[in-house]
Amino acid sequence: MTPQPSVSYSITIRLEFAANSAAISDITGTIEKMGGSVTALDVNASGPERMRVDMTVLTAGHDHAMSVVEALKGIESVELGKVSDRTFLAHLGGKLEVKSKHPIRHRDDLSLVYTPGVARVVKAIAETPSDARRLTIKRNTVAVVTDGSAILGLGDLGPLAALPVMEGKAALFKRFADIDAFPICLDATEVDDIVAHVKAIAPVFAGINLEDISAPRCFEIEDRLRQELDIPVFHDDQHGTAVCVVSALRNALRVVEKDIRTVRIVLSGAGAAGTAILRLLKAAGAEDIVVADIDGVIHSGRKNLTGRLPWIAGVTNPRGITGTLKDAVKDADVFIGVSAANILDEDDIAAMADRSVVFAMANPEPEIDPVIAARHAEVVATGRSDFANQINNVLAFPGVFRGLLDARAKNFSDRMLLAAAEALADVVSPEELNPNYIIPSVFNERVTSAVADAVEQQAREEMGTVDTITGAIPAIKGGEIHL
Amino acid sequence: MTPQPSVSYSITIRLEFAANSAAISDITGTIEKMGGSVTALDVNASGPERMRVDMTVLTAGHDHAMSVVEALKGIESVELGKVSDRTFLAHLGGKLEVKSKHPIRHRDDLSLVYTPGVARVVKAIAETPSDARRLTIKRNTVAVVTDGSAILGLGDLGPLAALPVMEGKAALFKRFADIDAFPICLDATEVDDIVAHVKAIAPVFAGINLEDISAPRCFEIEDRLRQELDIPVFHDDQHGTAVCVVSALRNALRVVEKDIRTVRIVLSGAGAAGTAILRLLKAAGAEDIVVADIDGVIHSGRKNLTGRLPWIAGVTNPRGITGTLKDAVKDADVFIGVSAANILDEDDIAAMADRSVVFAMANPEPEIDPVIAARHAEVVATGRSDFANQINNVLAFPGVFRGLLDARAKNFSDRMLLAAAEALADVVSPEELNPNYIIPSVFNERVTSAVADAVEQQAREEMGTVDTITGAIPAIKGGEIHL
Repeated sequence: MTPQPSVSYSITIRLEFAANSAAISDITGTIEKMGGSVTALDVNASGPERMRVDMTVLTAGHDHAMSVVEALKGIESVELGKVSDRTFLAHLGGKLEVKSKHPIRHRDDLSLVYTPGVARVVKAIAETPSDARRLTIKRNTVAVVTDGSAILGLGDLGPLAALPVMEGKAALFKRFADIDAFPICLDATEVDDIVAHVKAIAPVFAGINLEDISAPRCFEIEDRLRQELDIPVFHDDQHGTAVCVVSALRNALRVVEKDIRTVRIVLSGAGAAGTAILRLLKAAGAEDIVVADIDGVIHSGRKNLTGRLPWIAGVTNPRGITGTLKDAVKDADVFIGVSAANILDEDDIAAMADRSVVFAMANPEPEIDPVIAARHAEVVATGRSDFANQINNVLAFPGVFRGLLDARAKNFSDRMLLAAAEALADVVSPEELNPNYIIPSVFNERVTSAVADAVEQQAREEMGTVDTITGAIPAIKGGEIHL
Repeated sequence: MTPQPSVSYSITIRLEFAANSAAISDITGTIEKMGGSVTALDVNASGPERMRVDMTVLTAGHDHAMSVVEALKGIESVELGKVSDRTFLAHLGGKLEVKSKHPIRHRDDLSLVYTPGVARVVKAIAETPSDARRLTIKRNTVAVVTDGSAILGLGDLGPLAALPVMEGKAALFKRFADIDAFPICLDATEVDDIVAHVKAIAPVFAGINLEDISAPRCFEIEDRLRQELDIPVFHDDQHGTAVCVVSALRNALRVVEKDIRTVRIVLSGAGAAGTAILRLLKAAGAEDIVVADIDGVIHSGRKNLTGRLPWIAGVTNPRGITGTLKDAVKDADVFIGVSAANILDEDDIAAMADRSVVFAMANPEPEIDPVIAARHAEVVATGRSDFANQINNVLAFPGVFRGLLDARAKNFSDRMLLAAAEALADVVSPEELNPNYIIPSVFNERVTSAVADAVEQQAREEMGTVDTITGAIPAIKGGEIHL
């Protein structure tokens, strides 16, 4: 897969040249010859002899952008000005702001939202702590927590470097679920410390979203926080991914007319995502799952099984497969990859069962080129935005949290995640379903509410507080009686 | 001082009555007789026989509101509906929201603010950590940190009950200084733990505002954080108050034509605020200060001096005064109270020097009724919004932080606080200055920028990075070169 010019590497180049020359066509021709794509041309200044233009060009990456700029330098009579970068411009000053919901125009407003009025709200919450969900931001807040130890695919770059990702995540929470999320980038490395810090900051939040924390630390941190806190603690890299994969698989199996209880599934990757996908596949009824990691197929006879691997060996591989990933993939109905680039080839996909399903989600390069996989598999999905069937966590976490917050859930269960996966799958109607459309777009407006409603209803059922007629959210009580 | 009807206890009462009766005048007459003040009358529904009205009434407090409602119940033919409370309505759902600065409309936007584009910003910050101040919210964020141990005057009510105050503070940061502040309410009590938690969350923030943490813990927490963090750590109850008091005193002494270096100052209260006021008065040149606490005048001969009291005894009381607060106040030029209600009487104020200054700032009830104090003192100020010369921290902290953030300061100094106090005082021009206007209104639009500019310039001078010509903030660099 040759990288295509993309908005992620969009640059704006300032150029000055003689107004009477054929410079513009020279310039655009040079850019196109170099494989760049001109998307905008703004005249910045113009005179009888000279003109200055800002030209926006999509490129395929850093080196490509540099080569486009170098090629432009080679055009005689064109003078290059500054080169700027749309991604960096979009990050200048940060991506979030914290705003007051109420205007503060005069002293009366101050007296209402601050002293002395606020003192009465303080006393009300001290008397009835659950009122914090009515009278403070706690009703609608999520902490996006990281230690920066596993940022995207980039590794351990620390809490400060993680901040742009956490800001972006918080922006997505707001955009897709109207949740007020705030980044908490912890300068801490020990599991005990991270647990202690998250517990300490918990009063302000109705939920914790763990993000980009390295395995296996993320498992222990999540387990302990789920036990010790009374708000949901969700590790998106695990549970968000699992919801999306199980959802996509549900629709993929509808396309290929197979049953999750009988298909042979091979799962490549036993880290945070892989383990969570496995759990949710089991909860969804899958029975024949074989997991492989960098050392090959996991089975109970394999030596040196540590961490979660003994558990994986115990609950998977009913036919006792051994050997490599490639061995396991033979005759499999479903391949799910959350592992590494290009570890399968065309022959491996060809050796799968008829009407096979391939989810190759390694980032940024999938386990197999999806174009090649599609020659043999009936349904192919990736994590990439430039291919059909993008499996993107943005489909899950906003709605899952919206549902948990609206139910005032203290925790979440596999059944809530399954409800989310089913609701997400059902956003694609039977009439819409086809091999290239097994999962809706993140911009499909029905996604968040469908997922949120399913999670909230399931949460209320498990909490025993569901309104059995409608599953409706009880209206927020007004400010009555608190004189 | 009889409490006056105020917006802090504004209630809205729904009433239904016969349309042809004289009910409305009965109702408003009853409310006025009870001492309430009708501020709005909205017809909610009306028919040929009946009408329904929402009447908004200012009351003086909880009991007063209840008595107004009870009196209305006594009117025949009027039916009472729900009674709601404007302060609680203003708090419903919380007072803050976290918004994305960029619209996320389509996939291109996602690629810019989240993956894959964000990965390049992550790498840039990993390489050059100081770029976090350009490319993330760290440039403009303040954590409003509390443990809920000393909320307003209400005591130790815990982190959850403190949240409405911290939200209000964050709203004020935004309103008055365009700073993005977020509440951090810590479920922690030990000094070591609080220090550790604040250090852990520091990467996201450019400053820490400690708030409502009980003395003497607040001193150690602040001292340690100032030493261990590379961002300013400001305890508003100390330093914000000190800036406002020194600023107000500067103008009060202009009114009474006295010199800070020679006036006799009595300071009542040796807690967080008192100690910080003392430090800044010393830095401002005051030489004759006598401090009193609940046990009387602090002097080096007094027994059982603990905590900061030995230091106070060492730097104050040059004339070796002993005895009670009342003894100290005799012949004093200035009284500054940050202590308790009604501890002075008219005779005490009468016994002060000619042209005396009284700042009675105990909340909500001052050390002496300001109306009585004004019979003898030439300048009187309080912390109350219903009296002239309100000394309100909102005058200081937004501008102080704006200046510190714009200078990218790592700490602050007494000289920066003095610069803030002087700039705040100078917002009141010589033509405007009089005994009832020694300090500007919090809604005076020049306040924040005057304070911020003074703090920033002083910070840059001390950091050695000042632009000596203009003191100007260097323009934020654009997104150049980061291809």
